[in-house]
Amino acid sequence: MPLVRIALRQGKSSEYRRAVADAVHEALVEAIRIPPADRFQIITEHDSESLIYDPSYLGITRTDDLVIIQITMNVGRTLDLRKQLFARIAERLAQAVSLRKEDVLISLVEVAKENWSFGNGEAQYADK
Amino acid sequence: MPLVRIALRQGKSSEYRRAVADAVHEALVEAIRIPPADRFQIITEHDSESLIYDPSYLGITRTDDLVIIQITMNVGRTLDLRKQLFARIAERLAQAVSLRKEDVLISLVEVAKENWSFGNGEAQYADK
Amino acid sequence: MPLVRIALRQGKSSEYRRAVADAVHEALVEAIRIPPADRFQIITEHDSESLIYDPSYLGITRTDDLVIIQITMNVGRTLDLRKQLFARIAERLAQAVSLRKEDVLISLVEVAKENWSFGNGEAQYADK
Repeated sequence: MPLVRIALRQGKSSEYRRAVADAVHEALVEAIRIPPADRFQIITEHDSESLIYDPSYLGITRTDDLVIIQITMNVGRTLDLRKQLFARIAERLAQAVSLRKEDVLISLVEVAKENWSFGNGEAQYADK
Repeated sequence: MPLVRIALRQGKSSEYRRAVADAVHEALVEAIRIPPADRFQIITEHDSESLIYDPSYLGITRTDDLVIIQITMNVGRTLDLRKQLFARIAERLAQAVSLRKEDVLISLVEVAKENWSFGNGEAQYADK
Repeated sequence: MPLVRIALRQGKSSEYRRAVADAVHEALVEAIRIPPADRFQIITEHDSESLIYDPSYLGITRTDDLVIIQITMNVGRTLDLRKQLFARIAERLAQAVSLRKEDVLISLVEVAKENWSFGNGEAQYADK
């Protein structure tokens, strides 16, 4: 269910990008208990002109290693669970690729559970 | 009104990608009755490292032909209409490019009708 | 907070794209009073096959200069403020790069304020 869009600066190795994607997915599994097989991710790389970020908004120091993660997921997780998700993503990325936790920006877009079709033209979650 | 983002693996011909875009649009027109002229689509191609999917989540067998379709559209369609939309998109893609219905993943993001400007800096739907 | 995705046809200069991004950001600051440092933008370029638009939907004449702007932002702005935002974006783009106002398409995706992490794995807006 989550559809995860990961944007980062170009120039990283494919191993690095895979490790980022793996870490984000593991955090989703651990923090909000999605099934491990529920994995759909789109990774995009951008040059410095195409990924623009503020280096100090809210007093947080960001670098060109910034990873922007936008997750479309079902509405209904408590605030506490969403906070755990943020924390876990940052932790996992730190472990996986030594990413500074300041360089993790996350945006959640919550949608109704019936707003997904995982194949066959059916709304698999609609009647759950 | 729908803003449609279509993501698929690179390597398909431009004719194939156009047929996919056409099929998704026709399904929107047929299933939820948007005007035929209400068409705005962004298609992105991704290599195997950048479009990650589970090949069997929910028991559905997916291949590298997977098409991920994220549609931003106005809130308010009934569940039945949204189900018809999912079914129609899968049908149309099967007809158009022989896409397996298992290889169609759809995510709807519903927004308020006043959250669009189609030009001129105006909110054309706000007072409808 | 806003995460801004700007899509336009490829072929523009980097100066042009920067001016577009600047104009959109200035409009957000002016119209809905986000902090000037609250800037996160992803710009993507697309060829004619990959950015499909209707040239006359709602009687508005669009050209290949079309810029599609999708803004993920917190829910809660009044309709009037959102209308001012649309108007200001179109005005700023006209001033900055002589973009025709017809060529500005905007989609807002509103989310809960606790659905952001700007770094450190924390939900900075959750308790505001």
